[in-house]
Amino acid sequence: MNVAYLNGKFIPKNEVTISPDDRGFLFADGIYEVVRWYAGFFYDMTSHAIRLKRSLRELRINWDGVDSFPSIVNELIKLNKLESQQAMVYFQVTRGAAVRTHSFPSTEVSPTVYANAWGFVPDIQSIESGIKVMLKEDIRWSRCDIKSIALLPNTISFQEAFENGMKECIFVRNGLITEGSHSNIFFVIDGMLFTHPESNFVLSGITRKNILRIAQDLGIKIREEAVQENRIRFTREAFITNTSAEVTPVIELGGNTLGEGVPGPVTKLIREKFYAEIKALKG
Amino acid sequence: MNVAYLNGKFIPKNEVTISPDDRGFLFADGIYEVVRWYAGFFYDMTSHAIRLKRSLRELRINWDGVDSFPSIVNELIKLNKLESQQAMVYFQVTRGAAVRTHSFPSTEVSPTVYANAWGFVPDIQSIESGIKVMLKEDIRWSRCDIKSIALLPNTISFQEAFENGMKECIFVRNGLITEGSHSNIFFVIDGMLFTHPESNFVLSGITRKNILRIAQDLGIKIREEAVQENRIRFTREAFITNTSAEVTPVIELGGNTLGEGVPGPVTKLIREKFYAEIKALKG
Repeated sequence: MNVAYLNGKFIPKNEVTISPDDRGFLFADGIYEVVRWYAGFFYDMTSHAIRLKRSLRELRINWDGVDSFPSIVNELIKLNKLESQQAMVYFQVTRGAAVRTHSFPSTEVSPTVYANAWGFVPDIQSIESGIKVMLKEDIRWSRCDIKSIALLPNTISFQEAFENGMKECIFVRNGLITEGSHSNIFFVIDGMLFTHPESNFVLSGITRKNILRIAQDLGIKIREEAVQENRIRFTREAFITNTSAEVTPVIELGGNTLGEGVPGPVTKLIREKFYAEIKALKG
Repeated sequence: MNVAYLNGKFIPKNEVTISPDDRGFLFADGIYEVVRWYAGFFYDMTSHAIRLKRSLRELRINWDGVDSFPSIVNELIKLNKLESQQAMVYFQVTRGAAVRTHSFPSTEVSPTVYANAWGFVPDIQSIESGIKVMLKEDIRWSRCDIKSIALLPNTISFQEAFENGMKECIFVRNGLITEGSHSNIFFVIDGMLFTHPESNFVLSGITRKNILRIAQDLGIKIREEAVQENRIRFTREAFITNTSAEVTPVIELGGNTLGEGVPGPVTKLIREKFYAEIKALKG
């Protein structure tokens, strides 16, 4: 039986119900996190917990149980008997259920806190062989730094990529590459590693941050600068990062084959170092 | 007892439950309409039905019962015994419940169709005396023409206005005034009526369209052109329109008092003509 979490209780997932008055359902007025369980530990739980708090703070959603986030996701792994396998926990907090008004509820309501867990099978094929990705105008809002559930632009953009046989949709805003629909993107140009700086136009990915640290440890030169779309032809390598894709090479971008059309050496070096770190954490 | 509609059935509203897997809850992957009942008829139901279909088409949500939209909202008025008073019906369609993936569900799922109705009391004070509104950078996505439930930018922007004692937040994008968080805006400048043209940056309001028709009938010169923020000081009158506010005068905009700080003559003329139309429809 799949066990989920709802507002303080662990209950069968099929018994979880959301009110039609929930501001998550009516207004996308909520935030989320996805944390990964590597058959024994969560990767960088600290950063996920910090980002969850930041998201709530930015939207002024008051969840007084926020410090229990790590223990809730841990409990979901146990209750679903996922301890010895790879798993994911999805965690969402909305402003709660109230009479529909654009303004926040006039009397403070309790936020809706929902989480569920499932066994996760990584996409090894993509991680090893690399993926083709689409390039598309960034139609999202200008607060992409908030990990909100207002993901409609992301889903319809990703769907377009998906239907064209691509594994991600990379966004371009004012001629500059920002990030993917649910990933950050890195480029290797002239031996340097480029990625969009933290800003209101990108989500500050946990894997992004750790990959920057790993690359620095490896002595790779880093430029946290947006890459112009027209510089793609000078790009020898690229890769995307997120919690599920880890470091997934990009071999074709917007119809342009990158380098030899296979995962590049810098990408592979970073990916192996990331895996070495995971292995070390497993102990 | 408040009766709502969910997926083909009229049931007590407090028995309506939404799945946590609903893409409306997880991704804001849905659209909505709000229609107004004037104690005997819905105002311009035809346009609302056309816009609902367009929203669904733009997001490629297939709801084969879409033609029953007018009869469902009509039935909600009856079941809730609202026939003889003013009322609103809220109507939302999401892509449905499915395993969480950014791409659309791989096997076609039924959309979630939800609606509810309530007795409505217009904000006469605002309509008669006018309102103060805030000006703020437009942080929304670039498909504002779709009446989607991805309203987080609208809610947090409106909340800021609300906390500053304002009745609406008007957006500015690249120096041009687009619309409000849940209204369109019109300006009277040099005796001409300005409003942002239909585009991906504004919602094509039903009231907006009808007010343009009414203004034309009145012989008022119309310019469907975006107004630059720095032209506000030349603006003698402004008003917002939407289904609930109808024609509500704006007497202060971004700290600037408009004209004499009272509803202007062109605004009042249009508002009275609108009310005359409503009265005639009542028969």
